[in-house]
Amino acid sequence: MAAVSPAKRARKEANSDDMKEAFPDISPIAYRPDAPADETLVFRHYNPSQQVMGRSMQEWLRFSVCYWHSFRATGLDPFGGPTITRSWDDGSDTLENAKRRMHAAFEFFAKLGNKYWTFHDRDIAPEGSSWQETNRNLDEMVELAAQLQKQHGIKLLWATCNLFSHPRYMNGAASNPDAHVFACAGAAVRKGLEVAHKLGAENFVFWGGREGFQTLLNTDLNKEMKHMANFFRMVVAYKEKIGFKGQLLIEPKPKEPTRHQYDYDAMTVIAFLKTHQLDKHFKLNIEPNHTMLAGHSYEHDVVMASAMGMLGSIDANTGSPDLGWDTDQFPMDVKAATMVMKTVIEQGGLQPGGLNFDAKVRRESTDPRDLFIGHVGAMDTMARGLKAAARLIQEGTLARAVQQRYSSYKSGLGHKISNGTATLEDCEAYVLKHGNPSVTSGQQEHYETIFNHYVHDLK
Amino acid sequence: MAAVSPAKRARKEANSDDMKEAFPDISPIAYRPDAPADETLVFRHYNPSQQVMGRSMQEWLRFSVCYWHSFRATGLDPFGGPTITRSWDDGSDTLENAKRRMHAAFEFFAKLGNKYWTFHDRDIAPEGSSWQETNRNLDEMVELAAQLQKQHGIKLLWATCNLFSHPRYMNGAASNPDAHVFACAGAAVRKGLEVAHKLGAENFVFWGGREGFQTLLNTDLNKEMKHMANFFRMVVAYKEKIGFKGQLLIEPKPKEPTRHQYDYDAMTVIAFLKTHQLDKHFKLNIEPNHTMLAGHSYEHDVVMASAMGMLGSIDANTGSPDLGWDTDQFPMDVKAATMVMKTVIEQGGLQPGGLNFDAKVRRESTDPRDLFIGHVGAMDTMARGLKAAARLIQEGTLARAVQQRYSSYKSGLGHKISNGTATLEDCEAYVLKHGNPSVTSGQQEHYETIFNHYVHDLK
Amino acid sequence: MAAVSPAKRARKEANSDDMKEAFPDISPIAYRPDAPADETLVFRHYNPSQQVMGRSMQEWLRFSVCYWHSFRATGLDPFGGPTITRSWDDGSDTLENAKRRMHAAFEFFAKLGNKYWTFHDRDIAPEGSSWQETNRNLDEMVELAAQLQKQHGIKLLWATCNLFSHPRYMNGAASNPDAHVFACAGAAVRKGLEVAHKLGAENFVFWGGREGFQTLLNTDLNKEMKHMANFFRMVVAYKEKIGFKGQLLIEPKPKEPTRHQYDYDAMTVIAFLKTHQLDKHFKLNIEPNHTMLAGHSYEHDVVMASAMGMLGSIDANTGSPDLGWDTDQFPMDVKAATMVMKTVIEQGGLQPGGLNFDAKVRRESTDPRDLFIGHVGAMDTMARGLKAAARLIQEGTLARAVQQRYSSYKSGLGHKISNGTATLEDCEAYVLKHGNPSVTSGQQEHYETIFNHYVHDLK
Amino acid sequence: MAAVSPAKRARKEANSDDMKEAFPDISPIAYRPDAPADETLVFRHYNPSQQVMGRSMQEWLRFSVCYWHSFRATGLDPFGGPTITRSWDDGSDTLENAKRRMHAAFEFFAKLGNKYWTFHDRDIAPEGSSWQETNRNLDEMVELAAQLQKQHGIKLLWATCNLFSHPRYMNGAASNPDAHVFACAGAAVRKGLEVAHKLGAENFVFWGGREGFQTLLNTDLNKEMKHMANFFRMVVAYKEKIGFKGQLLIEPKPKEPTRHQYDYDAMTVIAFLKTHQLDKHFKLNIEPNHTMLAGHSYEHDVVMASAMGMLGSIDANTGSPDLGWDTDQFPMDVKAATMVMKTVIEQGGLQPGGLNFDAKVRRESTDPRDLFIGHVGAMDTMARGLKAAARLIQEGTLARAVQQRYSSYKSGLGHKISNGTATLEDCEAYVLKHGNPSVTSGQQEHYETIFNHYVHDLK
Repeated sequence: MAAVSPAKRARKEANSDDMKEAFPDISPIAYRPDAPADETLVFRHYNPSQQVMGRSMQEWLRFSVCYWHSFRATGLDPFGGPTITRSWDDGSDTLENAKRRMHAAFEFFAKLGNKYWTFHDRDIAPEGSSWQETNRNLDEMVELAAQLQKQHGIKLLWATCNLFSHPRYMNGAASNPDAHVFACAGAAVRKGLEVAHKLGAENFVFWGGREGFQTLLNTDLNKEMKHMANFFRMVVAYKEKIGFKGQLLIEPKPKEPTRHQYDYDAMTVIAFLKTHQLDKHFKLNIEPNHTMLAGHSYEHDVVMASAMGMLGSIDANTGSPDLGWDTDQFPMDVKAATMVMKTVIEQGGLQPGGLNFDAKVRRESTDPRDLFIGHVGAMDTMARGLKAAARLIQEGTLARAVQQRYSSYKSGLGHKISNGTATLEDCEAYVLKHGNPSVTSGQQEHYETIFNHYVHDLK
Repeated sequence: MAAVSPAKRARKEANSDDMKEAFPDISPIAYRPDAPADETLVFRHYNPSQQVMGRSMQEWLRFSVCYWHSFRATGLDPFGGPTITRSWDDGSDTLENAKRRMHAAFEFFAKLGNKYWTFHDRDIAPEGSSWQETNRNLDEMVELAAQLQKQHGIKLLWATCNLFSHPRYMNGAASNPDAHVFACAGAAVRKGLEVAHKLGAENFVFWGGREGFQTLLNTDLNKEMKHMANFFRMVVAYKEKIGFKGQLLIEPKPKEPTRHQYDYDAMTVIAFLKTHQLDKHFKLNIEPNHTMLAGHSYEHDVVMASAMGMLGSIDANTGSPDLGWDTDQFPMDVKAATMVMKTVIEQGGLQPGGLNFDAKVRRESTDPRDLFIGHVGAMDTMARGLKAAARLIQEGTLARAVQQRYSSYKSGLGHKISNGTATLEDCEAYVLKHGNPSVTSGQQEHYETIFNHYVHDLK
Repeated sequence: MAAVSPAKRARKEANSDDMKEAFPDISPIAYRPDAPADETLVFRHYNPSQQVMGRSMQEWLRFSVCYWHSFRATGLDPFGGPTITRSWDDGSDTLENAKRRMHAAFEFFAKLGNKYWTFHDRDIAPEGSSWQETNRNLDEMVELAAQLQKQHGIKLLWATCNLFSHPRYMNGAASNPDAHVFACAGAAVRKGLEVAHKLGAENFVFWGGREGFQTLLNTDLNKEMKHMANFFRMVVAYKEKIGFKGQLLIEPKPKEPTRHQYDYDAMTVIAFLKTHQLDKHFKLNIEPNHTMLAGHSYEHDVVMASAMGMLGSIDANTGSPDLGWDTDQFPMDVKAATMVMKTVIEQGGLQPGGLNFDAKVRRESTDPRDLFIGHVGAMDTMARGLKAAARLIQEGTLARAVQQRYSSYKSGLGHKISNGTATLEDCEAYVLKHGNPSVTSGQQEHYETIFNHYVHDLK
Repeated sequence: MAAVSPAKRARKEANSDDMKEAFPDISPIAYRPDAPADETLVFRHYNPSQQVMGRSMQEWLRFSVCYWHSFRATGLDPFGGPTITRSWDDGSDTLENAKRRMHAAFEFFAKLGNKYWTFHDRDIAPEGSSWQETNRNLDEMVELAAQLQKQHGIKLLWATCNLFSHPRYMNGAASNPDAHVFACAGAAVRKGLEVAHKLGAENFVFWGGREGFQTLLNTDLNKEMKHMANFFRMVVAYKEKIGFKGQLLIEPKPKEPTRHQYDYDAMTVIAFLKTHQLDKHFKLNIEPNHTMLAGHSYEHDVVMASAMGMLGSIDANTGSPDLGWDTDQFPMDVKAATMVMKTVIEQGGLQPGGLNFDAKVRRESTDPRDLFIGHVGAMDTMARGLKAAARLIQEGTLARAVQQRYSSYKSGLGHKISNGTATLEDCEAYVLKHGNPSVTSGQQEHYETIFNHYVHDLK
């Protein structure tokens, strides 16, 4: 470990001729809309530079690949051991292995043709035997990451700290009943912000998987939520101190692994942030699979967070609505993708956020090519959605109908209601004068039929 | 009620010049694939006579309109009163009103261009003050229905008896703790079968919405299930006695209105039928919205019932996966429709069953045109699904991959396993000789990507 | 309608000798802890004047009977007609019938021995043919209610307006796309507040069953939420104008009848209130059956709202966790009741709120005595919970363990974290000095076992 | 591995003086109903020899401890690493470690005072590098188990094979698309049955966690279900060949780890068994946590399987109804336990089945004493349930009411319906003669109130 500096070693690794190709059988994925039906290593819709409503597809979609699922997952599930082994990964917790893995990852990013990645601190560097060694490991890997980012023209959409896997966090991180554990979380995030800053992260995410309770019987809700708020205040202070410009994001999830998580859904997080005057400093990273687990429709939290001015980024994935846990599947539903992209276009894009594939190949999808196919299929799904949403918005078919639907608020009493100057007495006077309103159809089937037309018929 | 016979009166009504058109503003729905995006009273995909894999679309899809939602629903829900009023329906419980309603219905069927309808006994004729009068009312309406069927070339996909709305059935019909109520159910079904026979019904359906329990504390499960089985035996006996050739169908539903219903899902009904040696006499009418309420994926019971050789007919509708009750929405998801139609084609069609739109316009969709739009949008959705499924099956892309996946069962030990001649000792001998199997990817993302291609790209 | 003033007529009715007893076979419910097992018209635990932790049971529990379920429900459900008929109710929409019903209700309150009731405007008085007539009807019934309150010593826990049953509200009330409908809602609430004030209501509740969307496709979320906020501002202004001192409450519900309701759960409402600076003026009325439908545990929103300082009142009912709709069953689970009462005691009681039985006898429970039994069983359930919770709190067994669990926040870094003066750097310094924390058991099974002991063994 | 025989070595280990006590601080759990509230290492209700309705508590309850959760679980979850370490377990996959673990387990069984245990083959013995070595390891551990069973007077309630953890089973065991994997499953079960026979297992269980599909797109349902049926036929043949007398049991689970499992719930398994004429050879092992995941109430499958004559054994555990995955918590709800024990008593007991604690301490319950507390709390919960159910049944309060409810089936038409001799025409004739039935209250609240009285008031 001695003489050679981390930066130097990283450079050496990055350029190493010894480094074997991780995916020798896979060429860079090409845009070939007319490829035969059983070819799934080809883009049929995602054409990065193609212009859609004044931006390139790449600028609208801002795809990122996540490190944890795609380069650390082994197929382990609560009922079974690892199924996935990779040629470049010997399963050891060494820096050497970590480096081979990172080279493979950047080869993957490059061949896939996406421009962003995301990671947790613990994904990229092994935990050491002491806090100091852990940080040194991280520094060494960050050096390599910086080199590889530059070499491949890849950027960091966001970084985050893993404050849930280590046993120390089993009872929570910032909401832990033990201040010593809180301190660990604080120390980790200080380092995480430093590293994110160094790598030019455009955002920094907090997902509080263990922030919540397993049973109310042993829990002091007020203490735990107050400690969490103080934690976030420390984060804001440190971010400003070091000049990190990335957007801070909180990712809601209702449950799993914890029975109840404090960041249940978009509105719950907003309530928490507003209660503690933190809403100016954070936006939301919405994951639809989490939204579904909170009892909402797939797109609900994306749309609601956007309406509240709080949509920062999206974890592009899906679950199966008949399952009650987070399956983190690749998003393959074009209709859902169209709803999401409609929202994204209407708010003017996600930047500095993006569409992060917090998705994993199924435990049974054990071939390296499955890793490509999952991403390619999902990128095409989102691209189909982008194109459909853009056409829908450009033609204005739905928008005109919706505007007409609310037109009564443009004048008279409606206008006073809208600008907050009406009173209950005004309402009564209006009704006494005008009698009962007519019943107006909501026309759901009409809207659905038009939407289907854009999703399916127009190319 | 006296002199004029029901048949004569019905004929008079059917031909009456006085009968006003119910939908004067709606022309027969045309196939116009290139209509502008905001036109929703037009078929873009459903072209009845168009050939698909050797049959017309109409023959594959066998759409039917249901009477209860489309001509009896008022928009009532547990939290609100009726919202829907129709020009032809004065809300009275008279035969005159029932007849105007039936004329409107057949005008609707004809303008929509579908060939089948379905009804409950109580949908078409008002309950009288005595059992006798109720049956007379039904006879009179059946005469009219027979006339209108003939006049418009419409057929009866299935009939059923409403054994759940009347207060007498609140504790169940065939599973009621009171034999007197059981007798009512038996009497109603005797009449219902007679009527179905008369109108040439191709099927007869049983949906046991009140057959189940609200609390186990007051319930004798064994008695109730035995009575239900005896009820179905009586049905079979009577059907054979009168020579009714229609297929008997049971429609599973897990819950709602009853907390737990005995016909929970496809496999539960099959267990019941097999326990009582009734499985030769019944098939299943599967409703995907019910399937979802039983915790399955949308298409599960369609596919499973088909695999068990028990799929008789389908109630084409959908629910919202985030809702826990039966919303009976029009099916608007093309991907789901493709899965359903793939199953239908693979089993050689649904005949004598069909795709019955057990779907209602939303309570807020109060215009008569919404009734058309809902059906049109759904018919196009199923037609899109039929075309995608047909192309998928014809090209054989998925089928070849699936066959390959199971190819080890074609010879050697696999073949012995498949034909039931292998033993556990054979298995052990094989493993001791051949060691561990290799891990083979399930390739879910590959299959999903191909499926998306057929759903979205190929026309 | 002419000569006699409403107040005079109401007095006459209230004292009328002609008024027949509604429940002639039911005597006032007595406290008889040793009654035989099959007697269910007797309190075994609820003893109104019995002291528990310095208050009477009656003061802690503050039970109220709701008018809608107990005196307006007919057993109608989405699949069946009315099953419940009452001797005093001829089903007509007349004032005479409304008055008989109100007499029956107050007889019921008196025989049950509870001190509060609750109602919607439309529960107690029939809708007239004009807005003016509707208000006159309401005034007349309010006169009678005032008389009967006085006569029987019954108070009004809360009033509310029904802004969801009438077809005009099908697309929402304050969130309706039509300003004319908003005006109706405003007019109704103006009158409702006036009436509540007159009857001495201790609270006024808003439940927005139609405030939300059925489909996002036809909805402008921002407009709808802004209009709702403006509506609540008008309410606050009018309340202050007339000097109404009751607490304003919002009752969250996630869905049903609307697909998605803006008042999804406690935290969602808090986010909304804080966004619009309304949180000083409103508290929450939590219904556990709604909480369950939002994906939480039974007690979650009660506990969370209390922790946020926002718990105003509770709708004491339950659902079945295996059902996805609001069943409004009488609360019969003592363990759940103990959790709720523990929270109530810990926040010092619910006053001016209470435990409102927003619960209905099952559709199959058609006897008038079932109405008593449901309330009696539920009151005993809550009383059992109160006694268990009080003993648990008085003995301090759990509280001591919980305090110990968080003791690290009392000094040192923990104290700085707790009072908001720690930094991320402080955290890191602590960890570098002290290394890793030890793993501390959360002891869930220990807490659960103690809790069971209080629920079951201690009397 | 050479000279010393497994049996000899096992004996040596079993008697070894070197073997350190695993739970030195825990004394055998005593029955002390009056212990202070915060003592949770004491039975307050479970008194093994206490007579209840003619049997000892121990005979009714037949508790068993499972090896997998209690001696192999480490606290691993999908979002975090192991939290639980035990003094006797060095984490290695050696036979020495396996033996220390087994000694600890039998010490635990003995101190807890229960008489049964359960295990999977892979729980007790490490997988070897070859199939042969794996079996030798198992033989060696079975020798030790036999010794320890004898020494401590512990019996084997059931054994099972783990056909889901090893990567080879990722696509299923008996339903795997690869016949080679099927062969592995067959070989494992042959050995498993041999071992079960040797250890005197009273039952043998099949839980098909990977028997199902992740996506229908790559699955041939008919082939997979047919192979499963053939697998079970081989099991029956081999069982008979070796003379194993234990009851074969299938344990339903709807989903997790697989998206859809063929053994969805009790009725699904019964449909499968009857379809393949296997129902004479198998009964069901019902786990309420699985029942809940299939959308039923907690007790549903216990009660339904019993009504169908198919209830063989019960996995005594629970989940949280607000969570959508299998949490395998210790059953702590006395009301639910009372429903279960009522069913068990009514069917005359569970023998040769029992109540197996397929329950794990929470991941955060890291102390060895938590393992005791979880079991003790659960045993007391079930004992409370047994006592309440017995009193309820002995006093006959509910049973008399239920019998009365169905009394109309004892004579006349009801009797003919009941014995299967009535016809639909008989029903009609009865109704034409007797008119409409009266409405009879289902009295749910009355039944619930009585039930609560037995659960809470009577000791």
